[in-house]
Amino acid sequence: MRVLLSNDDGVHSAGLAALAAAFEGDEVWVVAPDREQSASSHAISLHRPLRLVEVGPRRFAVDGTPTDAVYMGLNHVLKGARPDIVVSGVNHGPNLANDVLYSGTVAAAMEAALLGVHALAVSLAGPAPHEFGEAARFAVALARRVVANPPPAPLLLNVNVPPGPVRGYRFVRLGRRTYGNEVVEKTDPRGRKYYWIGGDDPGFVPAEGTDCTAVAGGYISVTPLHLDLTNYASIARLGELGVEWP
Amino acid sequence: MRVLLSNDDGVHSAGLAALAAAFEGDEVWVVAPDREQSASSHAISLHRPLRLVEVGPRRFAVDGTPTDAVYMGLNHVLKGARPDIVVSGVNHGPNLANDVLYSGTVAAAMEAALLGVHALAVSLAGPAPHEFGEAARFAVALARRVVANPPPAPLLLNVNVPPGPVRGYRFVRLGRRTYGNEVVEKTDPRGRKYYWIGGDDPGFVPAEGTDCTAVAGGYISVTPLHLDLTNYASIARLGELGVEWP
Repeated sequence: MRVLLSNDDGVHSAGLAALAAAFEGDEVWVVAPDREQSASSHAISLHRPLRLVEVGPRRFAVDGTPTDAVYMGLNHVLKGARPDIVVSGVNHGPNLANDVLYSGTVAAAMEAALLGVHALAVSLAGPAPHEFGEAARFAVALARRVVANPPPAPLLLNVNVPPGPVRGYRFVRLGRRTYGNEVVEKTDPRGRKYYWIGGDDPGFVPAEGTDCTAVAGGYISVTPLHLDLTNYASIARLGELGVEWP
Repeated sequence: MRVLLSNDDGVHSAGLAALAAAFEGDEVWVVAPDREQSASSHAISLHRPLRLVEVGPRRFAVDGTPTDAVYMGLNHVLKGARPDIVVSGVNHGPNLANDVLYSGTVAAAMEAALLGVHALAVSLAGPAPHEFGEAARFAVALARRVVANPPPAPLLLNVNVPPGPVRGYRFVRLGRRTYGNEVVEKTDPRGRKYYWIGGDDPGFVPAEGTDCTAVAGGYISVTPLHLDLTNYASIARLGELGVEWP
């Protein structure tokens, strides 16, 4: 099968290399940011041009975001040679629960799905040093199943792999992270203040059937995502809101 | 009421000034990016610190993204003095259909909702020169209704205002934009290639009950958004996928 790989850690990252190695025997293309783009979310570069550099056979670096990379990969590098699937990762660090709204790794997969191609986002939930091999091998096994039984609409799957021994995999919903909502204030050598977003590692609300709980229990979580943010249940209720207008 | 304003066009933008003027009489706070951040999406700055500069009474500039600005606004500037509502905008240019996945204006409102505060994202769909007054006045009317009848969970509303005479407002779902998926190749004076994402203005799939069609027909669109990207319908079906693992 033909596979396009991308990520948000940059074209030279170990997680991407592990993925490329695991897909050996397939036609593997890489189009990824030229440097780390973590927490770049679904940003797309509409107001500046992009450079595209061939850094190896079927390997390209884009001086933009993960979304830019997948857009360039599908609409330029692989134009007319659509891949069977796009895989983004392996990210070093988890993308669980509402992380998916901020994650560049997930955004790359979202962009592929929006462009009509099945996509996986794969993240390794453990702390450094990272051993990406098992996550990469699961990604390949999952990709093969999706491509062998392709659903009619583009499938978008968010995958998180626990550190240590893996007990299996689970299809689960997104959980809920708990953030401290902290701002850490520091003072620079010139006496001016600056601020860091966030404090300690966030925890999560334990709940059966969620990605957070699955990964904490040693299972790989696989969560299908959709991209229609309309809150349908709310539309009817809002009709009673009666805005005074004009 | 106490209102926090932000945007992705920057603290000095005309759309934000129109909003602040329309909320006259309320307790208005502004925490916004120090410069234009269009298409910065839901990016959050976790890997570098932020500066926060007071640029006027109750007006602050953050050298970060819209998400950073709202986070700093709610968790630092207004810590302990939670606003009744956060309003992001008025954006110059529409944020319709899947634009909401890329939009910094919408991301600012999303961040507020994630932090537990009702939020509106307001965009003016017309071409420049922009006249933000009517969009700002509608935002105020809508904000007053939401704050007067607050739902139990944080409400997140995406609002697009058409150019020209407004015929009314509609509660509608997100529509579907059609993109050309173009990459425009150029050559620089040194003979090296560079690339622009996207070509002509995208159109949309006409459909009753969508934001695109409402705005095209001269109506303000109001779309409630939710932030759980789990594709529940897909979870059960995926159980049959049977990944061969390990």
